[in-house]
Amino acid sequence: MSELTMIKYIRKRFHKKHSDILIGIGDDGMVLKNGMVLSTDSFAEGIHFDLRYFSMFELGYRTISASLSDLAAMAAEPVCALISLYIPRGTKDSEIRKLYRGFSKVCKKFNCDISGGDIIASPFWGITITVVGKTNRPLLRSGAKPGDYLYTTGYLGLAETGRIVLKEGHKKELFPESIKKHLYPEPRIYEAQKLRRYLNAGIDTSDGLSTDAFHIAEESRVRVLIEKIPIHPEVKLFCKLKKISPVEFILSAGEDFELLITGREIKECSGVKLFQIGKITEGKGVYILTNNKFKRIYPTGYEHLR
Amino acid sequence: MSELTMIKYIRKRFHKKHSDILIGIGDDGMVLKNGMVLSTDSFAEGIHFDLRYFSMFELGYRTISASLSDLAAMAAEPVCALISLYIPRGTKDSEIRKLYRGFSKVCKKFNCDISGGDIIASPFWGITITVVGKTNRPLLRSGAKPGDYLYTTGYLGLAETGRIVLKEGHKKELFPESIKKHLYPEPRIYEAQKLRRYLNAGIDTSDGLSTDAFHIAEESRVRVLIEKIPIHPEVKLFCKLKKISPVEFILSAGEDFELLITGREIKECSGVKLFQIGKITEGKGVYILTNNKFKRIYPTGYEHLR
Repeated sequence: MSELTMIKYIRKRFHKKHSDILIGIGDDGMVLKNGMVLSTDSFAEGIHFDLRYFSMFELGYRTISASLSDLAAMAAEPVCALISLYIPRGTKDSEIRKLYRGFSKVCKKFNCDISGGDIIASPFWGITITVVGKTNRPLLRSGAKPGDYLYTTGYLGLAETGRIVLKEGHKKELFPESIKKHLYPEPRIYEAQKLRRYLNAGIDTSDGLSTDAFHIAEESRVRVLIEKIPIHPEVKLFCKLKKISPVEFILSAGEDFELLITGREIKECSGVKLFQIGKITEGKGVYILTNNKFKRIYPTGYEHLR
Repeated sequence: MSELTMIKYIRKRFHKKHSDILIGIGDDGMVLKNGMVLSTDSFAEGIHFDLRYFSMFELGYRTISASLSDLAAMAAEPVCALISLYIPRGTKDSEIRKLYRGFSKVCKKFNCDISGGDIIASPFWGITITVVGKTNRPLLRSGAKPGDYLYTTGYLGLAETGRIVLKEGHKKELFPESIKKHLYPEPRIYEAQKLRRYLNAGIDTSDGLSTDAFHIAEESRVRVLIEKIPIHPEVKLFCKLKKISPVEFILSAGEDFELLITGREIKECSGVKLFQIGKITEGKGVYILTNNKFKRIYPTGYEHLR
């Protein structure tokens, strides 16, 4: 079962019933009527991270940032995180402390308490983080409107470049920003709050642009047109070395944890970096401009069950 | 690092700072000022459950019940659950559906939505559940007062008897209630709500009586006196077969998910089953009455990192 199929199954079977819930399963997080937003993310050794090139501090930093990114995607302000650890027997206390220092570094930056969780023994490392945030006006995947512009808050493909560079042992000095993006992604919490008033829909770029854009198209019942994708020099270099198309690469490269957002025209917003990469129109599906023609594309991104 | 040491470390390092949080790390759940209660529990194959004698339905039933039990312990009413699954590659869709039917069966009974979560591939089965509840008056571990009575809502040791009977292949027909208690525990959600007005402190019996009572003694800064422990006939039989003391067994046998509560005298409470098993006095530590003398005991219960 793919992640999308599974989400569909769960959603169909478990629609919102409880009177305290505003938005149930299906968005980046769920929303209660009192404005609380909740989201859960899991990370497994060998699937989401590789301890050969992740220090415990980096692991903590990265996983909590990825989790908080779901709150950013909904323009929510963090309140707290509950962290569950699956830890191999024999793990040293000092390792766990380093992991917590990573969590803590990010949490302090975004005024997020670590308020709970549990720790269990397990054959391998696993981390599940539930983040709790609040917002008076959650940004949803379903709010995009024809006429909206499509933006990202940064370059895409950097984190995946960094991951492969580390995994395959390419020259690190050529890819400093890519490596940083993989090990130390930054949730766009403050950017989301600053941009909120311009926006109609949002998601974070965790599954690759084609999949993330697809979610917006599906949930908003609109067409997403991708017109131009900014390509970071390191991504360009990496794709040249790999002899692959940078655009194809970016369409399926996940985990940059930038925002993919739609809304009215934004001339400038107090220093927030933004790329306008496309538009929203009536229709459905995701299209990309190639040789002056829009070509329909389908989700090719990360699916962790594949 | 033991679970208790770890909790102490995390607690010391991460005290409550966020202004929306009423109670942070350390109780059965954390509590927000708006009355929301959150708690997270994880379950790993081979540690918390054994798929040789757990059907997927039973696994779902048991894990969500165990999770909701933390809300019961705080006298909170369930709102929703976020469920994260670590699933071995190649797992059949039908298995996942059966698991969700188990979750669903319990959730329906307690008006709890399944509102989120995620699914990742992993080398083994793991389940992390975050439950969200609400209460105007959370029941805490720290509220016990000298003069209180100590109660449980049912027999203790049954679930652990059931677990060992299944694991070691003893005669199942001799232990029907034990097996039922292991596979289908019932969170005491409604009992907690009915009893709330009598109570000062509470915890659920997940780690063995000695450990659970220890938490109350520590957090409330009181002494817990255990005077008599009711012993279920199946537990008596099992301990006879094993040639062990039923009381010793119960002190470390966890996961019955009954309530261990303290409060004023309760003559009767609309059909809720209750055993009065002891008292709270000034002082500290947990004591048990043996041969007409109180003997100090220490936590011997389940510690999942041992």
